[in-house]
Amino acid sequence: MRKIGLSEIEDIALGASLLGAGGGGDPYIGKLVAMGAVKERGPVTLLDPEEIPDDALVVPIAMMGAPTILGEKGVGGKEYEVLYNMISQYYGKKIFAFMPIEAGGVNSMLPIGAAARLGLPMVDADGMGRAFPELQMVTFTMAGISATPMALVDEKGNSVIFNTITNQWTEELARSVTMSCGGSVSVSLYCVEGAILKQHAVKGIVTRSQKLGEAIRRVKESTDLTPEERFLEFSEGYRLFKGKIADVLRETNGAFNLGRVVIEGIGSDRGKRAEVVFQNENLSASVDGVILATVPDLICLVDTETFIPVTTDALKYGKRVLAVGLKCFDAWRSEAGLKLVGPRYFGIDTDYVPLENRIGGNADV
Amino acid sequence: MRKIGLSEIEDIALGASLLGAGGGGDPYIGKLVAMGAVKERGPVTLLDPEEIPDDALVVPIAMMGAPTILGEKGVGGKEYEVLYNMISQYYGKKIFAFMPIEAGGVNSMLPIGAAARLGLPMVDADGMGRAFPELQMVTFTMAGISATPMALVDEKGNSVIFNTITNQWTEELARSVTMSCGGSVSVSLYCVEGAILKQHAVKGIVTRSQKLGEAIRRVKESTDLTPEERFLEFSEGYRLFKGKIADVLRETNGAFNLGRVVIEGIGSDRGKRAEVVFQNENLSASVDGVILATVPDLICLVDTETFIPVTTDALKYGKRVLAVGLKCFDAWRSEAGLKLVGPRYFGIDTDYVPLENRIGGNADV
Repeated sequence: MRKIGLSEIEDIALGASLLGAGGGGDPYIGKLVAMGAVKERGPVTLLDPEEIPDDALVVPIAMMGAPTILGEKGVGGKEYEVLYNMISQYYGKKIFAFMPIEAGGVNSMLPIGAAARLGLPMVDADGMGRAFPELQMVTFTMAGISATPMALVDEKGNSVIFNTITNQWTEELARSVTMSCGGSVSVSLYCVEGAILKQHAVKGIVTRSQKLGEAIRRVKESTDLTPEERFLEFSEGYRLFKGKIADVLRETNGAFNLGRVVIEGIGSDRGKRAEVVFQNENLSASVDGVILATVPDLICLVDTETFIPVTTDALKYGKRVLAVGLKCFDAWRSEAGLKLVGPRYFGIDTDYVPLENRIGGNADV
Repeated sequence: MRKIGLSEIEDIALGASLLGAGGGGDPYIGKLVAMGAVKERGPVTLLDPEEIPDDALVVPIAMMGAPTILGEKGVGGKEYEVLYNMISQYYGKKIFAFMPIEAGGVNSMLPIGAAARLGLPMVDADGMGRAFPELQMVTFTMAGISATPMALVDEKGNSVIFNTITNQWTEELARSVTMSCGGSVSVSLYCVEGAILKQHAVKGIVTRSQKLGEAIRRVKESTDLTPEERFLEFSEGYRLFKGKIADVLRETNGAFNLGRVVIEGIGSDRGKRAEVVFQNENLSASVDGVILATVPDLICLVDTETFIPVTTDALKYGKRVLAVGLKCFDAWRSEAGLKLVGPRYFGIDTDYVPLENRIGGNADV
């Protein structure tokens, strides 16, 4: 148990946006929500999963839809209370704590805002250990746990409760409603008891985000390593490519931020050409036609000077980026995990090969 | 109080498909559901609204989406029980009776099927007195009564409860989910207490449908009138046009059956050309460019020989039809009514003029 205040939020947002792997939204928007709540109501208690009673109800809080739309529409502030009431009424039980469902600039922050506003603790765990674009893509699905009852509320006051036969149907139906509500809504799903949480969640993700954020912030403080070497060391990242964004092709279909970005090599990568395909999150990275990394491993683009993560909705021509691969949560590499979030699910015609095997000897710079 | 058995169902389905005004679906499909249930479980008790206690909960049962899809997908049979449980749990109260929400070949029948299967009575009232394409288009909306909580269930077992800030939002969100569920679902909405029902529903609609159906079935029994004269007399219909369908233009957008039908005059209308525009239901009828009738009045096409109504999804080149206008339920002609279902709402650029005024002296044949 420890407290999450303003400086912790700053680092968690920064680190979580790296784990967002291109998705998860702008940490600036996320921070606004979390910091606003903490300034008003005081710091939030962060609990280790082991501190949660087995029968206590833990409820994820997240936004669904396009984070950029959230930035335009804003969060009304009443959403969390409505979600709280919908879920606790449904279960006939008080909510013990909130948790994030994924790591990302926005969805790592909203549970902090909700916890501060409703005076509840938050759990140091999530359901992905990174960000993924669709809501069935959580460790809980692998364990056969239903996403529903799922509560959805928009900033206008419309609310919906779903009960579906599969988590893929939850995604399907909730996505439709999200689109009809203008592209972003607040949701609670995968409400779990403490025992389930301890068994199936990705533990320690908030703390990991915070440590990554702190390290990025202090990346230039080291004296014996270059900032890039230091960044790769603490992030346990594999260097994929360094270059200048030469083209961004988007095909926004309303529901997702789809596309690919072409990067022209600089420095030791001069003369080469990389391509990163994304659906909210980065899905695959290839250099001169050879795939170097795919989902579920994390493909992250960061600014070559500040090492601040660049999300897929902020990709711009001319920006210099370092592409880095991070190993995903182990369970995603299982057969069940790859069925849910492997490259073929996203239409990428390759088997999954662990990042470290694809990179081979060139892994450590 | 009286009983609805197989022969009553036959007539109700036929008459309701006239009041469907081109929409409301194929009475054959509706009858299958209602008759199947009544054969298994016995006749259904039909209650007059005045027989309902003021605080008793009355729940409409309907399908949402394209009736033709319902015909393909079928009704699983469990849907009504699921709806019953969702609604009674929500209110913490038993359901006293079911009711139809609109008149039409399918939606007049499903509440009979539900009532038979669950052993509940049905009320002789609905919320439209005809069929309309969107779910906010009920008398209850004019009275400021919320469509929600609305329960929706598909044949696969997915279910959703909506709570919305307006009935237009209910339409918007439920339509999205309906589309995602494959285009047809079962719903309960506008759940009302007896007191509200007595004040705002369209009363006697089941009995009216049955009488219309019986009259259509016996249209050729009269000796002193031609069948057409007899049909216009008992339906209190205004003869608009008689002709042969020359063209059907459809622009199915998935959510609705949109389009227009062109009819070339025969008999006394030879040389003239009529056009009927529809969105599930017929919206306007014009002859040689002059509008003769618009929503909310009913525009019905019936077979020139059998006087069996022709729904918009059954329009076919070459079919001979009589176009007839029926006066709508009075409240639809109010300012509030016309805002909800007047021609301009549907993009038809004309003020509403009551059918009988447009037709003028030619009203009664």
